[in-house]
Amino acid sequence: MRGTIAVMTKPGELEYQSYDIPTPGPGALVLQILRANVCGSELHVWRGHHPVKKRGGIGHEMVGRVIALGDGVTTDYASQPVKVGDRVVATYFQTCLKCRPCLDGQYNLCDNAYEFFALQPEQAPHFHAGFASHVYIHPRQNFYKVPENIPDSVAASANCALSQVYFGLDRIGVAYGETLVIQGAGGLGLMGAAVAASRGIRVIMIDGVELRLKQAKAFGAAHVINMNDYPTEADRIKAVQDLTNGRGADVGMEVTGVPAAFNEGVRGLVRRGGRYLVMGNLSPGFTIDMDPGLLTRRSVTVMPVDRYDARYLYKALLFLEQHMTRYPFGDLLDASFPLTSVKEALDKSAKREVTRASIICEAA
Amino acid sequence: MRGTIAVMTKPGELEYQSYDIPTPGPGALVLQILRANVCGSELHVWRGHHPVKKRGGIGHEMVGRVIALGDGVTTDYASQPVKVGDRVVATYFQTCLKCRPCLDGQYNLCDNAYEFFALQPEQAPHFHAGFASHVYIHPRQNFYKVPENIPDSVAASANCALSQVYFGLDRIGVAYGETLVIQGAGGLGLMGAAVAASRGIRVIMIDGVELRLKQAKAFGAAHVINMNDYPTEADRIKAVQDLTNGRGADVGMEVTGVPAAFNEGVRGLVRRGGRYLVMGNLSPGFTIDMDPGLLTRRSVTVMPVDRYDARYLYKALLFLEQHMTRYPFGDLLDASFPLTSVKEALDKSAKREVTRASIICEAA
Amino acid sequence: MRGTIAVMTKPGELEYQSYDIPTPGPGALVLQILRANVCGSELHVWRGHHPVKKRGGIGHEMVGRVIALGDGVTTDYASQPVKVGDRVVATYFQTCLKCRPCLDGQYNLCDNAYEFFALQPEQAPHFHAGFASHVYIHPRQNFYKVPENIPDSVAASANCALSQVYFGLDRIGVAYGETLVIQGAGGLGLMGAAVAASRGIRVIMIDGVELRLKQAKAFGAAHVINMNDYPTEADRIKAVQDLTNGRGADVGMEVTGVPAAFNEGVRGLVRRGGRYLVMGNLSPGFTIDMDPGLLTRRSVTVMPVDRYDARYLYKALLFLEQHMTRYPFGDLLDASFPLTSVKEALDKSAKREVTRASIICEAA
Amino acid sequence: MRGTIAVMTKPGELEYQSYDIPTPGPGALVLQILRANVCGSELHVWRGHHPVKKRGGIGHEMVGRVIALGDGVTTDYASQPVKVGDRVVATYFQTCLKCRPCLDGQYNLCDNAYEFFALQPEQAPHFHAGFASHVYIHPRQNFYKVPENIPDSVAASANCALSQVYFGLDRIGVAYGETLVIQGAGGLGLMGAAVAASRGIRVIMIDGVELRLKQAKAFGAAHVINMNDYPTEADRIKAVQDLTNGRGADVGMEVTGVPAAFNEGVRGLVRRGGRYLVMGNLSPGFTIDMDPGLLTRRSVTVMPVDRYDARYLYKALLFLEQHMTRYPFGDLLDASFPLTSVKEALDKSAKREVTRASIICEAA
Ligand SMILES: [Zn+2]
Ligand SMILES: [Zn+2]
Ligand SMILES: [Zn+2]
Ligand SMILES: [Zn+2]
Ligand SMILES: [Zn+2]
Ligand SMILES: [Zn+2]
Ligand SMILES: [Zn+2]
Ligand SMILES: [Zn+2]
Repeated sequence: MRGTIAVMTKPGELEYQSYDIPTPGPGALVLQILRANVCGSELHVWRGHHPVKKRGGIGHEMVGRVIALGDGVTTDYASQPVKVGDRVVATYFQTCLKCRPCLDGQYNLCDNAYEFFALQPEQAPHFHAGFASHVYIHPRQNFYKVPENIPDSVAASANCALSQVYFGLDRIGVAYGETLVIQGAGGLGLMGAAVAASRGIRVIMIDGVELRLKQAKAFGAAHVINMNDYPTEADRIKAVQDLTNGRGADVGMEVTGVPAAFNEGVRGLVRRGGRYLVMGNLSPGFTIDMDPGLLTRRSVTVMPVDRYDARYLYKALLFLEQHMTRYPFGDLLDASFPLTSVKEALDKSAKREVTRASIICEAA
Repeated sequence: MRGTIAVMTKPGELEYQSYDIPTPGPGALVLQILRANVCGSELHVWRGHHPVKKRGGIGHEMVGRVIALGDGVTTDYASQPVKVGDRVVATYFQTCLKCRPCLDGQYNLCDNAYEFFALQPEQAPHFHAGFASHVYIHPRQNFYKVPENIPDSVAASANCALSQVYFGLDRIGVAYGETLVIQGAGGLGLMGAAVAASRGIRVIMIDGVELRLKQAKAFGAAHVINMNDYPTEADRIKAVQDLTNGRGADVGMEVTGVPAAFNEGVRGLVRRGGRYLVMGNLSPGFTIDMDPGLLTRRSVTVMPVDRYDARYLYKALLFLEQHMTRYPFGDLLDASFPLTSVKEALDKSAKREVTRASIICEAA
Repeated sequence: MRGTIAVMTKPGELEYQSYDIPTPGPGALVLQILRANVCGSELHVWRGHHPVKKRGGIGHEMVGRVIALGDGVTTDYASQPVKVGDRVVATYFQTCLKCRPCLDGQYNLCDNAYEFFALQPEQAPHFHAGFASHVYIHPRQNFYKVPENIPDSVAASANCALSQVYFGLDRIGVAYGETLVIQGAGGLGLMGAAVAASRGIRVIMIDGVELRLKQAKAFGAAHVINMNDYPTEADRIKAVQDLTNGRGADVGMEVTGVPAAFNEGVRGLVRRGGRYLVMGNLSPGFTIDMDPGLLTRRSVTVMPVDRYDARYLYKALLFLEQHMTRYPFGDLLDASFPLTSVKEALDKSAKREVTRASIICEAA
Repeated sequence: MRGTIAVMTKPGELEYQSYDIPTPGPGALVLQILRANVCGSELHVWRGHHPVKKRGGIGHEMVGRVIALGDGVTTDYASQPVKVGDRVVATYFQTCLKCRPCLDGQYNLCDNAYEFFALQPEQAPHFHAGFASHVYIHPRQNFYKVPENIPDSVAASANCALSQVYFGLDRIGVAYGETLVIQGAGGLGLMGAAVAASRGIRVIMIDGVELRLKQAKAFGAAHVINMNDYPTEADRIKAVQDLTNGRGADVGMEVTGVPAAFNEGVRGLVRRGGRYLVMGNLSPGFTIDMDPGLLTRRSVTVMPVDRYDARYLYKALLFLEQHMTRYPFGDLLDASFPLTSVKEALDKSAKREVTRASIICEAA
């Protein structure tokens, strides 16, 4: 049997390739993909901004149904029995357990995370990415069964925004009684608001899009700051300080992807002595004017977090299972496309004609 | 009885004032100063680079002898009995216990730290600084008796470099088995090497002055990198990575005061996923080109630390008491001046004619 | 002007003494007590079970109105301006800042905590305890203004149960997603449920009194286990494990004062590898049969916590201010007595005729 | 080719079985065992004290030479290339990554640790234990190449005492400037002394055997307390408190296997507010009279630690490599036996005729 893969031949261009669906080796499995969502990082690649990735399969937020299990695979990574037909999600990266970061217990920084994800579709086992009919899950990729009450559209992105912010917020350690300011109400920001609000944390969200700020409230933000009403950095710093007895928030979370956001956080959104979780800026090469002396005086600890410990995908699923009715996870997607229209989905997303698109990968 | 205070009337200019020696209020005490050392931060003020301090008493690293105890003062801050004649050191700042950072347990960031230190000599109780015959220690300034085996010249600066790096290294948390790279072999750097080496940590020290690098070895550095041999950032990054299996050090400590050092640390002295303790850059207004996306990719946690929790002055004294023979603390000073020659001491220090000067405040 | 003090002359016996109301020294203040609640630890003393305290003033949970401020007292310990007439609460202990635990930063364990609280009423300044018309607050006792929406009856005990459990739960570190089992639905247990539930933690509460279990639900417990329905240790362990996928709770909190509760927690209420916060057993001399080998195999970390860091009284007030309508704090008291009836209040409490009594100290 | 396994048929009785040496499956490898040391836990089993293990292969501290590599095994767990002939050590347990403790990141508590180690020799792949000619290392057992300067006799037990105490001390967190008291100068205690001393920690060691106390000093203990000179608990508590300004040690480490040691630690070897690492008592069923109220008053945090995170075996090897000349690791063994004399080795060890025995497994 053959499967189909959407392949970005160069930024902005797409073709489809077809390959025999591979048989999973020991410890591996093969999924038929049900749905895969378009993430900001795909657009980044699609626009040609990624420092390395200029060609290849694309898509990493996916949910699928098991069609074949390799030798020794009888349970998921939470010891739940798994069988053909089960709906599962997996991390898009592996955890090799043997590289130096893994030896240090910093599993989210595994040097070999993308050993398979970075392969070209011409390289076996071909099915490395999410905008495809199938995907091959390697032995070191954590996968988990999806609880029944989580629909495909929500499950698809559990392995990205939610796992990411859950891990990031645990790392930075937002304590009860503290205030969190989130820069950016995209997928990461909204999930961050939900995670923090569920812990009783007061969340302030900054964004420039009315709709996203409305969503921010639904996702637990106590206060929203519309950049149209507070157009300058100074305005926004003042607004946050007004909400925090003149101090700034105890913790900041940067998920904008805008380099300038960094200075705004360090200079005043975050209070003196506060902590700043930085996750949105991932592309090297865009510099800002930064003042190290000011950073020391303000004593803001800056913690960048890249990826997440694979165990967090399980926590993310439990979180979704528990809070499906509390937060409108289903409302994040505003457009669906068949697998045959990946280019359209990416182009419209890149042009911001759609906010968050989803690819229905399952054959009709 | 009258005492004398060296007063910087404007950057680079000095006069002496004399005032009646005050009687300490409840919880306070008055010291006759024995010795006060010249610190880099004094030179900073003397050169006019300090953002705020443009006039006033000067000097903060001092050891003195108790001449009067206020009501209720029967012990030091370690519950050791204290009496007139005892030799003591004190923090140059207070810990108010009531401001918001104090309420958060971040005592090193007390908003009112300089409530007294920042007063002008015309304001009672006049004796606020270290280049003077006497100093007034307020109720919220921790002070400790000096162990006998610590000479004045060493005790004088316990309240600055050593307490600072001890606190900083505890905050950043250098674990056994990790490597620490220190940028800058001045007082902070050398003390940092001693503290880390005493914990079994491998220390790499970078500096451009031969003498300081020689001292670095005496203070416990396992490796030194001479900036004359490794003139570029890329050279030094390569040198550190060569010493650390190509990774970079687990932890970096910036104590140079040079803004560009920040980028060097983040870009490669510190390994991906490492931690970076930033203490040297304290003057706002000197910016660098910084790449937030690179910071996230390298996942280096940046922790600036300003001042220290006052309890650390006691730890610093215990450390000195224990290690007086292990590290050449006495060799750090290379010039002594009488109180009447403070200007000369500052000028020569500013011109780098002397490396580390000391003021003998005690009347002949 | 004279004030009145209820003095326990020996366990179970009471007299009243009157003294001139003292003038506060520097840093101190004097309060007219509005209300003081009866705490389990008073009953402990009243019954003669306390290892040391056999005579003296009694009562430590109190709220008062400032009638005199000592020199230098212009704000409370949160830098809020304070004046005569303000309603304040204070810790019943001091933090000396100079003893060895204070030097270690373990302020809750200050060796001199009871330097004043332990004085006899005959010793100046006489007003050391809460069942009295007035109380003297020493310079090292943290005090805070009471937010307006917190009634006297609730404010009175902020300095005990709520501060205690808030501190304890922060020390043991209950993470989001974890389950907390609380042994004992008295004041500590109910406050613990509220604090944990506010953080999104699932709480299981065990007690044998129907009314308390009903309150437990109002204070945020997700599940209650009635000891009448689960009479044996094995029953209760099974019940908790049934609620936690057969594992036991991630964290346990012992606030029963019953020595046997310790084994129950370690043997199975808390999961293997879990953490156990022990605060209820405070009286030495009551031993149990404990199995160290089992403890190691179950790998339960046992953390006893005694008192709290004084800063937590401020956190407790913020918590009450924020949650006055969410949890029925006002329902905890079920009987009020005038200051003239302290013996009756203690006797009835000791006999469990009233659950939680309050002394109205203010003269009619 | 056939291999030989020493099989305990019941406590105190031994026979040898021979099986075909298995071919390793994917991710596995097979070692020819060079040497295996006799550990206290073997004696525990040999004497019939283990709650479960009454029959089977025996021995877990071993070093071997690779004779066959399964599919996909090209490096060890530190990414070092591995080939037939390399000398390696492995954990005696696996880390399944899928059980609940593994999901919690508590890898040392993996529920499936002994899935293979607990198998009977009749069950394939037969070679589960260390007193044998060969051993089968499963895919989830971390293994590492042994640095050249570590002799077989030292490498053999890296996977037990040293990894254990290294992990335990990291978990309890002994800070620089603190004092550690170790109860028991057996293998765990001596390794604990070395690890702590290498971090600049002051170590006090308690034991009743002269030779072991002499070794304690060689392994870094600053003070030793001979139980013959301090025969009672009170004597020893006083001795430790005399060495620690009357307080007790900041941290205690129990590695005696004697239940009563627990009370001694909690009652006074460890200071009020200190921490107590408990690792020696592993057999349930031996109870002591414990006083929970005293525990709370003394506020000693008790942290039992069972096994270790498998990554620590690599840290242990680095530690040995670095410190082979600093500590006399080679002196710990005092008797060697051929594989044909396992019974003699166990009997003599059980009778304490030899202190620490080693089995030379390699055929002559
Ligand atoms: Zn994504
Ligand atoms: Zn890795
Ligand atoms: Zn200084
Ligand atoms: Zn302050
Ligand atoms: Zn109370
Ligand atoms: Zn104290
Ligand atoms: Zn062993
Ligand atoms: Zn496991």
